[in-house]
Amino acid sequence: MLNVDEAQEIILAHTKLSRHVQKGILEASGFALAEEIHADRDYPPFNRATMDGYAILSSDLNDEHIKEFNVTREVFAGMPAGESIVSGNAVKIMTGAMVPDGADAIIQVEQSIQTGPHVIFDVTEIQAGKNIAQRGEDAKKNDLILSKGHVIQPYVISMLATLGINKVQVYDSPTVAILSTGDEIVPIDQPPLTHQIRDSNHYNLKSSLQNYWIVPSYYDIVRDTKAELEKAIERGLKEDILIISGGVSMGDADFVPDVLASFGVKKLFHKVKIKPGKPLWFGETETGVVFGVPGNPVSCQVVYKIFIEPYIRKVMGLGDMRRLKLPLAEGHRIKGERTVYFPCKIRNGDHLSALIPITNNGSGDVTAAIGSDGLAVHPGDLSFLEEGTQVHFYPWRLLW
Amino acid sequence: MLNVDEAQEIILAHTKLSRHVQKGILEASGFALAEEIHADRDYPPFNRATMDGYAILSSDLNDEHIKEFNVTREVFAGMPAGESIVSGNAVKIMTGAMVPDGADAIIQVEQSIQTGPHVIFDVTEIQAGKNIAQRGEDAKKNDLILSKGHVIQPYVISMLATLGINKVQVYDSPTVAILSTGDEIVPIDQPPLTHQIRDSNHYNLKSSLQNYWIVPSYYDIVRDTKAELEKAIERGLKEDILIISGGVSMGDADFVPDVLASFGVKKLFHKVKIKPGKPLWFGETETGVVFGVPGNPVSCQVVYKIFIEPYIRKVMGLGDMRRLKLPLAEGHRIKGERTVYFPCKIRNGDHLSALIPITNNGSGDVTAAIGSDGLAVHPGDLSFLEEGTQVHFYPWRLLW
Repeated sequence: MLNVDEAQEIILAHTKLSRHVQKGILEASGFALAEEIHADRDYPPFNRATMDGYAILSSDLNDEHIKEFNVTREVFAGMPAGESIVSGNAVKIMTGAMVPDGADAIIQVEQSIQTGPHVIFDVTEIQAGKNIAQRGEDAKKNDLILSKGHVIQPYVISMLATLGINKVQVYDSPTVAILSTGDEIVPIDQPPLTHQIRDSNHYNLKSSLQNYWIVPSYYDIVRDTKAELEKAIERGLKEDILIISGGVSMGDADFVPDVLASFGVKKLFHKVKIKPGKPLWFGETETGVVFGVPGNPVSCQVVYKIFIEPYIRKVMGLGDMRRLKLPLAEGHRIKGERTVYFPCKIRNGDHLSALIPITNNGSGDVTAAIGSDGLAVHPGDLSFLEEGTQVHFYPWRLLW
Repeated sequence: MLNVDEAQEIILAHTKLSRHVQKGILEASGFALAEEIHADRDYPPFNRATMDGYAILSSDLNDEHIKEFNVTREVFAGMPAGESIVSGNAVKIMTGAMVPDGADAIIQVEQSIQTGPHVIFDVTEIQAGKNIAQRGEDAKKNDLILSKGHVIQPYVISMLATLGINKVQVYDSPTVAILSTGDEIVPIDQPPLTHQIRDSNHYNLKSSLQNYWIVPSYYDIVRDTKAELEKAIERGLKEDILIISGGVSMGDADFVPDVLASFGVKKLFHKVKIKPGKPLWFGETETGVVFGVPGNPVSCQVVYKIFIEPYIRKVMGLGDMRRLKLPLAEGHRIKGERTVYFPCKIRNGDHLSALIPITNNGSGDVTAAIGSDGLAVHPGDLSFLEEGTQVHFYPWRLLW
């Protein structure tokens, strides 16, 4: 049986970067850039006042020891700076305004006394460049600002707006189909009989996919019969990713692998040394991939996070999964040799962030993840991890 | 001047929990529950097989030492369990299926050899309850499953679907208006003159608000004249939150505080010991609040994250900001006495997660946050933090 790393490697080897699509910058949030972004001009585009005060020649103070300056005019943000400034003159200037040529320092308004057209300062020297952001100090015209693959989040959108860019090329989301199999499954608006359960995995997958702006193109609940499975799988294989929940354990009614084979889906692996989630099935077609996901709700959550989400991220150019490495706030014990992924919450408070395991009844426990912030990893070769052991942690919602 | 904690306290004291709104469970992602959720039946609703195998009476093996069992029938997931099982009989059963009354253990199919209607096992004893999830072991009918305020994320949506709930009451988002003030500001589709800059803060705020499903009801770029500000502020005050970018420093053209006062907005504070973001202005009306945000792009990002986002979260019942506490991967020095919020990225790799500061040119640097994952906090009373010092960290995108 493959271990988790081997299975992830096979899965990620079967991605290809998605098509480009153009999006408005606000709609592009969370996608990765499929183009480079360069500066359209210098930033700042002019020498900019960073304080309200008086723009002067620093040498007037430092070398000429001038005590009183003539205030020749005011420059507000949004005004052209006007004529060059000459020795002995000061220009009153507001934060964000363009500093006139000649002036190389600004004395803060709090350090000045203006009387009519004259101003005196309670400082006797000033560093050249003080309180001025120099033209081009942040970026020069044509500089590379954002590389391909940069993930678009609010500060990037702000940056793009600054550059006058309102549309960008990004890597598109893949298309997805979801099938819930199993004769025990009923739709959520239908009262279940005692031996039946409602279809929750479909909602879990759909809401997880929302984080990547993916709305499944096709969804169905499918009975465990070859005929029903064939019809649904044929349709589902039209999408980039087909996720089939249930039907991949060892039960006699698990027709899914056979039906997939009959449509030419090539099995790449079945079963991984992971708990929960062992029965994961993965295969490829000429145009996409198929994930066969165990039907237990916790297994479904783990398999999505550890195998399907990394696939989606790579297709969308979003890079590797972001994970944290944090100490356990309590010891944690496992049985068996499979790597265990278990729900934890992050301890709040004024100490180093640490992980508190959430106890549960295993892979079928519908309440297992309540109160958790994500999944921590317990390597299969260690039966006990002491309090303080640093482990990897995948937040349910990634930081990017 | 207030310190950050005092300012946050005043801001949070002026929240009131938002109105309830009903949403479909998938649309409710990221909102907080405004109702309690109880179990509609026991979970599991029946004794459920957790393995494919044979259901038997454990005493047959442990006490009666029966070697060969009669396989009387098969039970698949989704089938009623049928008659009670009696001593000497075994029922073949699939994962997820209902265990017949009487049976109290399941022997895995891998530990069995079935020949015609008979099965023998290569185990000679089995624990009662083995491979069976007991009815009600995860939750009993009518148990409280989710409290008011629980944040809805994929595992919660899965849980709600399990319970047959497709609509929930949540706390609604507040309504927001955004005004960008400043004569230097031009819309992003208009070429700026040398002394002008494009309106980036509006995009930063809009994209940050998207994380809370908020689309501003009103937005405008406003000249620094009383008349224009009056018209825009009058309209903006109709929303729960009015955010005004720019116009709150000490420049002569900063009419914003006066105009707000003329509409009866009560100032609660102006200026905070924070860097960047010092000129923050906060006030209240009878129906809402006003944030006056400094115009520099980094200041705007910091003020949103540290003051506006916590306000929105409290109104939406989402609880306190989630922050991490992590060590610095490098030393960090500040000047002055204000608490400094600086962009960092989280170090990847196999060591404890740590924060790498992103160097930048200060609050006006439009490129300051590039490559960062969030904001770290440097307390104003310490000029230098050594490598390894644990500091608070606010990810740009919260974990919930």
